[in-house]
Parts: sequence; C-alpha cells; structure tokens
Amino acid sequence: MTDIWTLDTQLAADTKSVGDLPLCRVLVMNDSQYPWVILVPRVAGIREIYELEAMQQQQLLQESTFLSMWLMKHFKGEKLNIGALGNVVPQLHMHHIVRFKADPAWPSPVWGKHPAVAYEEKALNEFCDALKEGLRLQQPLS
Amino acid sequence: MTDIWTLDTQLAADTKSVGDLPLCRVLVMNDSQYPWVILVPRVAGIREIYELEAMQQQQLLQESTFLSMWLMKHFKGEKLNIGALGNVVPQLHMHHIVRFKADPAWPSPVWGKHPAVAYEEKALNEFCDALKEGLRLQQPLS
Repeated sequence: MTDIWTLDTQLAADTKSVGDLPLCRVLVMNDSQYPWVILVPRVAGIREIYELEAMQQQQLLQESTFLSMWLMKHFKGEKLNIGALGNVVPQLHMHHIVRFKADPAWPSPVWGKHPAVAYEEKALNEFCDALKEGLRLQQPLS
Repeated sequence: MTDIWTLDTQLAADTKSVGDLPLCRVLVMNDSQYPWVILVPRVAGIREIYELEAMQQQQLLQESTFLSMWLMKHFKGEKLNIGALGNVVPQLHMHHIVRFKADPAWPSPVWGKHPAVAYEEKALNEFCDALKEGLRLQQPLS
C-alpha cells in the first residue's frame, strides 16, 4: 500500500486511458466485442468499495450512474453488466459492459469467455472521443 | 412492468429468502461452494441501477456496503465480488460473493463455472440465522 495512486500495470496494458472524472480514471477495454468501460477510483491502496470513505463511495456511485446512462444511450444497449471483481487485479476497478443478445458471450458474463479482439485504431479513437465528450472528461492528472 | 413488486421466480427457486433491509430483499444463494448473498431492491419494473431514483440508489449502495462488510468479516474472505448482471434474470439484483484463493472457481468469476452444490439444511439455516442477526433483517413484508 502506498499513498500515491498509480494505475495497475495490468489494467494499463489491457485498456486505453481516456481521461478523469472527479474520482475515477476512465478506461476503455481494448476488446471490440463489447462496449466496455472501467472506472478506477484514484485512491491508493483500495481493493473493495467499502474501503472507500463514505463520500468517495457516493461519488463512485454517481460516476457509475453517469457513465451507465451514457453508455446505454450511445450504444442502444439491451442490458448493462456492472461488476467489481478484482480476483486477478486487486486494485479497485468497476466494469461497465454494454450487452446485446447477439454479442459473442450472451447470456454469460464476458469475463474469461472469449479472448479479447483488439479494436482497429480508428474505431478505438472514435469510442474514446465520444466518451471524452459525452462525459466531459478531464485530462488524466497522474 | 407492474406497480407491485414480487420476487422473480427464478431468483426465488435458486435462493432462500432471509429477510428485508429498508430497500432490498436479502437472499442466500443455495450454493455451498461460496458465501453468496443477493440484494434485490423491492421496486417494481427496474432492470438497471440507474433506473432507481437517486435516493434509492444511495440506499442500495449503503445496504451493499453494510452487507459487504458483514460478509467479509464473518467469513474472513480474501476478496469480495460484486456484480449486477441480469442477462438471464432481468429483475435488478446485486450479487455479493465472498471469494477465497482455495474456492472451486478462483480466480474466475463464479457464474457458469460450476453447477451449484446445495447446502445441507443445517448449514443453510446457520448462514441465514447469522445473516438475519448480523444485518438485523426484518421479516419479508411481501
């Protein structure tokens, strides 16, 4: 545990950093099979939601709801999957995955179902740009 | 969509109803492989967290945190998995699963990994009694 928050290296390798909400770093999972965004509270040494202070928990909920509504509207999703697991990467992070009945894993959860299929650069940039504008993200501060 | 909330029949079949928190029905998944509790907000017609009113979202967060802390303390868990998926059962429900490095699915998510192994009646009753007392649950109202 350290006082300075830095993004876990495995999360950094699997995703593209898009920007910051007041509490969370916003990451797009580089898997073109599902619109999949991860929120990571920029708080050092936290593994579980209940370890955040009460105000931080409320902020996480608000940022999750804001992101959820944007994702479902933008992608016209049929279901949203939200999860905080952390068995492999213990740094607290919250998955938001837009699901469709026609997606490759439906109705199973996406984790461990199919290997990731990386985005074409243009498509990944379009997703990140839309997210940055839709959520009015700030440049990452750290 | 109906104005009267009733518990989804699939959830009812897979779990034991333990009691009520102010917002949620508390269910124990009848799978002895993992301590696994589900919160179901008693609000009709809701599929996604963001569809709840803001106050209900905050209440869900508080009940989830209260349950999470109790579960991890009671079972001395190594990690908690929290998820709201709903691909199979659309009624909003939030999983809380205590994980151990020695459990049958580690480090994968538990969903779809192994068929459920039902509890012995005595063990299930002990879990439910501890939960009822620990969370000071009320008798289900509906």
